Amino acid sequence: MSTSSPATAVPVYPDHLRDTIERYLEQLRFPARSAGVAGLEEAMRYSLLAGGKRIRPVLALATARAVGLEDRDVLPLAAAIELIHTYSLIHDDLPAMDDDDLRRGRPTCHVAYGEDVAILAGDALYAEAFHLLLRDGARAGGVPAERVLAAAAELADATGVDGMVGGQFLDVKGIGSSARAGEEGDAGERLRVLHGLKTGRLIGASVGGVVRLAGLDDERAEPYRRFAAELGVLFQIVDDILDVTGTEQDLGKPQGSDERHGKRTYVTEYGLQGAREMARRHHAAAASALDDADPSGAPDLRTLTAFFHTRTN
Amino acid sequence: MSTSSPATAVPVYPDHLRDTIERYLEQLRFPARSAGVAGLEEAMRYSLLAGGKRIRPVLALATARAVGLEDRDVLPLAAAIELIHTYSLIHDDLPAMDDDDLRRGRPTCHVAYGEDVAILAGDALYAEAFHLLLRDGARAGGVPAERVLAAAAELADATGVDGMVGGQFLDVKGIGSSARAGEEGDAGERLRVLHGLKTGRLIGASVGGVVRLAGLDDERAEPYRRFAAELGVLFQIVDDILDVTGTEQDLGKPQGSDERHGKRTYVTEYGLQGAREMARRHHAAAASALDDADPSGAPDLRTLTAFFHTRTN
Repeated sequence: MSTSSPATAVPVYPDHLRDTIERYLEQLRFPARSAGVAGLEEAMRYSLLAGGKRIRPVLALATARAVGLEDRDVLPLAAAIELIHTYSLIHDDLPAMDDDDLRRGRPTCHVAYGEDVAILAGDALYAEAFHLLLRDGARAGGVPAERVLAAAAELADATGVDGMVGGQFLDVKGIGSSARAGEEGDAGERLRVLHGLKTGRLIGASVGGVVRLAGLDDERAEPYRRFAAELGVLFQIVDDILDVTGTEQDLGKPQGSDERHGKRTYVTEYGLQGAREMARRHHAAAASALDDADPSGAPDLRTLTAFFHTRTN
Repeated sequence: MSTSSPATAVPVYPDHLRDTIERYLEQLRFPARSAGVAGLEEAMRYSLLAGGKRIRPVLALATARAVGLEDRDVLPLAAAIELIHTYSLIHDDLPAMDDDDLRRGRPTCHVAYGEDVAILAGDALYAEAFHLLLRDGARAGGVPAERVLAAAAELADATGVDGMVGGQFLDVKGIGSSARAGEEGDAGERLRVLHGLKTGRLIGASVGGVVRLAGLDDERAEPYRRFAAELGVLFQIVDDILDVTGTEQDLGKPQGSDERHGKRTYVTEYGLQGAREMARRHHAAAASALDDADPSGAPDLRTLTAFFHTRTN
């Protein structure tokens, strides 16, 4: 059986890392002095604990093991990233945005709790993500304050104008993007920029933030960052392929929803075979970058790299 | 002329500090690699540069001078607080929240740019606030990383579930709050809790964050924190009084809007005279706390304390 084809490979996932992050997320509480705020915490945890593969924090934990950090050193950052990912889903689903009623087979946050509460649940998840990282990031004792500061700064940058929210802006405006130098970018390039901001930068911060916590110098950090960038592109291409080829049961949403939303995807721009070829190339580039970063170790990152390519949901 | 009555005193404001923060805010840019995101930055700056007294960052700058910090040490924090305040106004004004069309005499962000862009402009301002503070907070050289970390953690906490967003949740649910121990809290107590979270904690962080940047120990910090807490309550009481007594021109919005929104205020709960008496008591308590913090100095904080009491808008 060839491992180069997403259609035939069997996806394997580092479930031990998912279990670690899931347990950590479950014990998180967001209490207020006022009992009246309990309903806000309920809406936050409804969306946060809706399951999922936890790709970003698992990637952070796998990177931590590769660079020699303890789980406890990186869990506040890993969880903060998942809180932020959850907030982005809540806001993306809002009526004024994508207006989605279902997420992972359950009513979206605004359907379950109302639009006002959903906006605030997203806002609060973002605040509590930084609260968690900034309060606990250096507490375990292994990480100096300046490294936590650098990791948190990268996370803020990755989720701001030149990151996740900027990418969502491009998405809702339907304008893709044009290169800063002018309007010459083609549709494929605009797609790469949009997804590079909307999903790529948070995936990048899942590796890059850990690299900062570990205090790696620029030279040692470079292959990890290249690896994360390739992984981000691979993630999106496979997402677009699965929207066409996946089953509704696997996806947790109707198949073909991108097409019905009129969205440009790697499949609409390059065709299914073209997209699969691109996925193969980015998978190879990610694997090669990982070899540069850690020629012999990082078993969890290798498992994850294969999973990003072969996943079915 | 008595200085104890808001109706007759002449409000004086530390305009030199407002000028300092205004210049700093004006030169802030939020660029993305993609030129297509320029529209997001435009919406952010539309709301950020809409004028206003800049009470929170001015309070931060005044506190910095009292504790011996340079402007450059505290400007990233001060500006971050104003970015966050701006984001909170944008989200509060949304159709799903207060549904306000005008703010400071201009169309609100969602009226000017659409609801989707307004949600994202708020989200991005919040991200860029932390980006600014975490990236530049220690850069000027005078502040060690662990102090920036502590100030940023306080800011995140003050704007999360047990802070600004939690208070807005209480406001939109119209449930005020009940004490954690039970439901025995009266309406006045619920009002104090709501505003203590919604506006009090960010005002508190404007002082408390600077106190952390300065590295004050708990004993020296305590009177500053007490001062900020009294100032926060005073701010809200005077706000409620002005909604009844202020002119539309001074307020930049129609007079009596709280009453039309059916909101409970210090005036509806205690009457105009009762509210004025409360304002006098909290003003005196703030001044007394300031005497404890800095018996002879802090002229800008003294000016501000009087302004919080005597302001007309």
